[in-house]
Amino acid sequence: MEKVKPRTLSGFMELLPAPQVQMERIMQVLRETYALYGFYPLDTPLIESSEVLLAKGGGETEKQIYRFTKGDSDLSLRFDLTVPLAKYVAQHYGELTFPFRRFQIGKVYRGERAQRGRFREFYQADIDVIGDGKLDIINEAEVPSIIYKTFTSLGLQRFKIRINNRKVLNGFFAILGLTEKAGDVMRTIDKLEKIGAEKVKTILVEDFGVEAATADELLKFIETPGGTEGILAALESYKGKNEVFDLGAEELKTVATYMQAFGVPADHFEIDLTIARGLDYYTGTVYETAMLDHPEIGSICSGGRYDNLAEYYTDKQLPGVGISIGLTRLFYVLGEQGYLNDQMNKAPADVLILPMTDDMGAAIKTATALRESGIRTQLYSEQKKFKHKIGYADKLGIPFVIFLGEDEINAGVVAVKDMESGEQVKISLDEAAKLIHDGLAKKNAGKVICDK
Amino acid sequence: MEKVKPRTLSGFMELLPAPQVQMERIMQVLRETYALYGFYPLDTPLIESSEVLLAKGGGETEKQIYRFTKGDSDLSLRFDLTVPLAKYVAQHYGELTFPFRRFQIGKVYRGERAQRGRFREFYQADIDVIGDGKLDIINEAEVPSIIYKTFTSLGLQRFKIRINNRKVLNGFFAILGLTEKAGDVMRTIDKLEKIGAEKVKTILVEDFGVEAATADELLKFIETPGGTEGILAALESYKGKNEVFDLGAEELKTVATYMQAFGVPADHFEIDLTIARGLDYYTGTVYETAMLDHPEIGSICSGGRYDNLAEYYTDKQLPGVGISIGLTRLFYVLGEQGYLNDQMNKAPADVLILPMTDDMGAAIKTATALRESGIRTQLYSEQKKFKHKIGYADKLGIPFVIFLGEDEINAGVVAVKDMESGEQVKISLDEAAKLIHDGLAKKNAGKVICDK
Repeated sequence: MEKVKPRTLSGFMELLPAPQVQMERIMQVLRETYALYGFYPLDTPLIESSEVLLAKGGGETEKQIYRFTKGDSDLSLRFDLTVPLAKYVAQHYGELTFPFRRFQIGKVYRGERAQRGRFREFYQADIDVIGDGKLDIINEAEVPSIIYKTFTSLGLQRFKIRINNRKVLNGFFAILGLTEKAGDVMRTIDKLEKIGAEKVKTILVEDFGVEAATADELLKFIETPGGTEGILAALESYKGKNEVFDLGAEELKTVATYMQAFGVPADHFEIDLTIARGLDYYTGTVYETAMLDHPEIGSICSGGRYDNLAEYYTDKQLPGVGISIGLTRLFYVLGEQGYLNDQMNKAPADVLILPMTDDMGAAIKTATALRESGIRTQLYSEQKKFKHKIGYADKLGIPFVIFLGEDEINAGVVAVKDMESGEQVKISLDEAAKLIHDGLAKKNAGKVICDK
Repeated sequence: MEKVKPRTLSGFMELLPAPQVQMERIMQVLRETYALYGFYPLDTPLIESSEVLLAKGGGETEKQIYRFTKGDSDLSLRFDLTVPLAKYVAQHYGELTFPFRRFQIGKVYRGERAQRGRFREFYQADIDVIGDGKLDIINEAEVPSIIYKTFTSLGLQRFKIRINNRKVLNGFFAILGLTEKAGDVMRTIDKLEKIGAEKVKTILVEDFGVEAATADELLKFIETPGGTEGILAALESYKGKNEVFDLGAEELKTVATYMQAFGVPADHFEIDLTIARGLDYYTGTVYETAMLDHPEIGSICSGGRYDNLAEYYTDKQLPGVGISIGLTRLFYVLGEQGYLNDQMNKAPADVLILPMTDDMGAAIKTATALRESGIRTQLYSEQKKFKHKIGYADKLGIPFVIFLGEDEINAGVVAVKDMESGEQVKISLDEAAKLIHDGLAKKNAGKVICDK
C-alpha cells in the first residue's frame, strides 16, 4: 500500500506526551484558580456562522479568518473567545444572571504567517465579568488579583502587572487638544516600549501632525517617574482641567488601592501610562503583564474594561472587564526559556507493576487495589525480557516499579523499587501505597513553572 | 446600528452555565479515571491536511467532512480521534515508548443531517493502548474494566458491557462457508438488536445469497443462551473445526476471566455474539456498553481490538485496543432522561460575600482569605438594593452567603447564611470556612449521575 507521509500542519502545536503532561498541569491550575474567584466554566462552538462571528466586520483579523462553506452555510472558526462570549451573552441574555462571570479555555484560529513561536491554532484562557447596564469599578481591581494569583499558582515569580486607564489617556489628549487624533496617538504610544520615545515623537509629529511641544508634553506625562505614588501625584496636578481625565485618575487610584487589598503585592504591579492596548473597545482600566526577565516576549496576560460587549447583537448595554492569556504561545516560550519544572512526574503513571509469573491474577489485583487508593497504575503485560520491561519504566520516567514474583505472592508482600534512588524494599501492599503516595507528594511538591 | 441576530449553529451544543458545570464535572471524572489507569493525556490539532486525514479515503464519513481550503492548503476538521492518533503515532514513532497509552477528550466534526440529539460538533472521549508489533491480550481485558470504573465513578449503575470477539465470528463464518461474505454478514448481524432475527435472516438470504439453513445455524449460534458460562461452553463444542475460531474462543475466555480480576462484577458484563461493530478494522475483542433502562439509546461506549492502526502512514505493525465515549450525545441523553444530579453545587461559587458598608476593604480581605482556604468565593460589588443582592445568590444557587456589616467587622465575625436551610450564624472567619467546607462536602457527596 502506498503510504501518506504523516505530518502536522505548520503553525499547529502538537506536543509529545511528556510536555503535554506539563501543559495539562498548567490548564488544570488555570481552571482551579479561575474557579476560585467564582467564574463559571464556559464552552462555545469552534464554528460560528460567518454573519454572526464577523458582525463587527473589517479589521486586521478578517483576512486571517478560517472561513468556508458547508452546504449552504457560510461558516468561520472563532479567532478569539470574546466575540463568542458577546454572542452568548446577547443570545442567552434572559437566562443569565448578572454580573455574569465566566472563564473559558479554548482553541482559536488565526491564519497568520507561520513563524517560530507563532501559532495558527492556539489556546486562549480568558475570564470576563459582564454587567447588565453597569459594572462596579471594584471588578477592575479584582481582575489583576486573579492575574497575580494565577501566575503565582503556576510558580512564576518575576512578573509585573502594568495598569493604566483609557480615560486618563483620553482626558489628557483632550487637555492637549489631541482628541481627534486620539486613536492614532494611542496606537503610536502603544509602540513606545518597542521603538523608543524618539521614534514615537517622530511618528506623532510627521505622520499625525502633532506639534513638537505637545508631543514632548505627552511623552513627559506618560513617562512620569516615581512609581505608583509618583504617578498618582502627577495625575493630581492635572486635576480640574478635564472631566474624563478626572474620572480616569479617580478610577486608577481606586483600582491601585483595592488591588493591594485583593492581595497583589506592591512590587508586582505598577501604573504605566504608556499602556493603551491597541484594541478600540477598552474604555477604562487596561492591563498588561510582563515577565521581568523576558520583556522581549511582550505581555503574557492582557485585557481591560470595555463598555459595550455585544453592541453588534443587542441594544442592551453590557459593560465588562476581562483578561486573556495566550496559553499556547506562553507554553512555547516557557519551554524555550527553560521555565518548565522537569522534576515533577511527567510519566503517565506513578507506578508500574511488573508481573514475574505467568498467571497475571495477583498482578491484576495489585493494580486494582493501587488504583482504588488513587495511585495512577500501569500493569506491564507484554511478553518481553526483564531488561526491556524495566527499560520501559525508565524511558517513561515512571517513579516506582513493583515486582511481583512467586516469592512475593506467597509471602503476601510486594517488592517496590524507587527508580530515582534505586532503593528496593519488600513490604505489604498498604505500606507500598503509602510509600508511593509519600514519594509522589515529594516529587510533585513544586510548581509547574520554575522561576528563581 | 443594525444588529445581527445572535444564534448558534444547528447541531452545535452550547450549554447554559449550570449544565455546563455538570458537563465539566463529567469531563473531570473522565480525565481522572483515565489517568488512574496510566494513560497519557493527548491533544492534537482540530485541523489536519486533507491528504493526511483522508488517507484512508472513501467511506461513509467522507461526505460529512468539514473540508475547505485556506491559501494553498486543502484542510479538513477531524471527524474522530482515531485517525489523528494514527497520524501521531506514525509521525512520532521514534519518540514514543510502546505500549503507548493515551487518552484524549476533544471535539470532532461531522456534517450529519441535523436532528434532535444528533450533533455536528461533539466531544469524543477515547482511550487507546498501542503496541509495537505485538500487544498482549491482557489489554483487551483491562479496557472493559476502565469502562466499568468510568461509568461507576460517574454514578451510573444500571449498565452492562457486552463483549465479543471478531475471530470467533470470522472463524464461525469460515465453518459455515461464509468467509467471502463475512463483511456483509457482519454488518447485517450488527443490526440484530434493532431489526430482529427475522429481518436479519431475510437480508442474509435475499440480499447476500446465504442458504436458509446456514442463516438459521448462524442465528442460533449468535443467540446462544446461558450467559457467559453458556456461551463459553457452546464455543467449546465447535472447537477444532477452524483455527481462527479456536483462537478467538480462547481469547474470549481469557478476557472474560481476567475482566473479573480487573474488578468488573459478573452482573455488569456479558458475552454477546451478536456484536460485530460496523467498522472494518476490528480484529479481536469488541465492546459495546448498554444502559439497561434505555436500550434505545444504543451503545454509550464502544471499541475493540485492531491489528493495524496506522497502515496508511507506515509499514510498522501497530496493533491496539481502544474505546470511545460519544460524550456530547451521552450528556444530552442523560439530561433528557433526568439522570443528572441537580443536588450538587451548580453555582459558579460556594459562597457570596455581601458587603454592607461603603468601604470594601474588609469584604475584600474576607474574600481573599476564603479563596486561600480553597473556597470558591464571589464578592458582590454592585451598587444594588439588598433584595437584588440576595436575589443574585438565590438565582445562581450559591449555597452560602456571608453578610459583612459594620457590627460584624467591629466584632471580628462574619454572618453566614445557609441558603438552603435559611439558618444564619455569626461566627469567626475560620469557623465560617469550616462550616462552608463541611456544607459543600455534604452537598457534593453524590455523583454527577443519579441512577437508582
